[in-house]
Amino acid sequence: MAPAYKLTYFDFTALGEPIRFLLSYGGIEFEDNRIQRANWPALKPSTPFGQVPILEYNGKLAYQSIAICRYLAKQVKLVGKDDWEDLEIDATVDTITDLRLKFAQYIFERDEQAKKEKEKQTLFNETIPYYMEKLDAMAKRNNGYLAVGRLTWADLFFVSMLDYISLMAKKDIIGGSPNLQIVRENVLKIPSIKAWIEKRPKENL
Amino acid sequence: MAPAYKLTYFDFTALGEPIRFLLSYGGIEFEDNRIQRANWPALKPSTPFGQVPILEYNGKLAYQSIAICRYLAKQVKLVGKDDWEDLEIDATVDTITDLRLKFAQYIFERDEQAKKEKEKQTLFNETIPYYMEKLDAMAKRNNGYLAVGRLTWADLFFVSMLDYISLMAKKDIIGGSPNLQIVRENVLKIPSIKAWIEKRPKENL
Repeated sequence: MAPAYKLTYFDFTALGEPIRFLLSYGGIEFEDNRIQRANWPALKPSTPFGQVPILEYNGKLAYQSIAICRYLAKQVKLVGKDDWEDLEIDATVDTITDLRLKFAQYIFERDEQAKKEKEKQTLFNETIPYYMEKLDAMAKRNNGYLAVGRLTWADLFFVSMLDYISLMAKKDIIGGSPNLQIVRENVLKIPSIKAWIEKRPKENL
Repeated sequence: MAPAYKLTYFDFTALGEPIRFLLSYGGIEFEDNRIQRANWPALKPSTPFGQVPILEYNGKLAYQSIAICRYLAKQVKLVGKDDWEDLEIDATVDTITDLRLKFAQYIFERDEQAKKEKEKQTLFNETIPYYMEKLDAMAKRNNGYLAVGRLTWADLFFVSMLDYISLMAKKDIIGGSPNLQIVRENVLKIPSIKAWIEKRPKENL
């Protein structure tokens, strides 16, 4: 029987990987449908807002990566124990997204070189250190997790996107953040995550 | 007794208004702490990531506007009846945010005039019509609501930000979208929302 879940995304990590981490964590079989760039223009009009990832389940279709992650986190029990804990987890995830968008904005900036260089200075000398210091302090307060003092989907979300963000940054962005390194270790040592990382395609991060 | 909830945001609608709508909808008293631009530099370092809105409740502090909205939506019962419905609502809210960010990117763009003009063309001739057509179709499918066929926090989120988005666009962005106009009517006719709009400061949208 085909798996109930079908994830459609590009053939790399980025916004698809938190979803793959969560499905793997829960031991949920899924079809990992990886589209090639050349096939994207044909597929795009059939998606709700011209974007992937999309997740299909029982004939229904979901879009928006973070919304999908939150749904899966509920299925695999990586959410908070009450509404306020979920608020803390959600705020953490949205903060990581803020940081990701700052990278993306710089990377996809098509401006002249001088402006891009100035943005690079701000990003690397101000924005990243600011976020890293605060996120590292959060990880310290939460004993090696990002929120509520234990493993939640915020940790899987963060760690699953580290390769992608570090690729954009051209360096390990948590290299100077000992508590965030503990978060990473805590996620990567989970047997189901370890198994996924061994199994996933190696060619493209 | 002072209200249990204290919202801190600037003296205009934007990211604060969905929170004010949700609190008002639920009949929850709150301190509407509106900071002036001049006081922001002094306050900024005390916020979790240098941003407002923040919401204080019972000595606890929350940040990230959408996470706060989702928490309040649970308290005032404007969420889905199951996880998949919540996924649909969350995806709708994130899509509205995508659209808002496209506006913000254009508005706060400090590029030379020629580039800005080109971005304006793309935004107004392609991006907005694309989103409006799809959102209007969603509102039609859902009988005058954005998701799951009835009133949810996605509707309050959308309508509370329309003034702000239309101010950025310098036109009523749902002027050509009859079903989105029904969504707006459905929200604005709610007595608690109507009362809030009459009560809120009129000077700044």
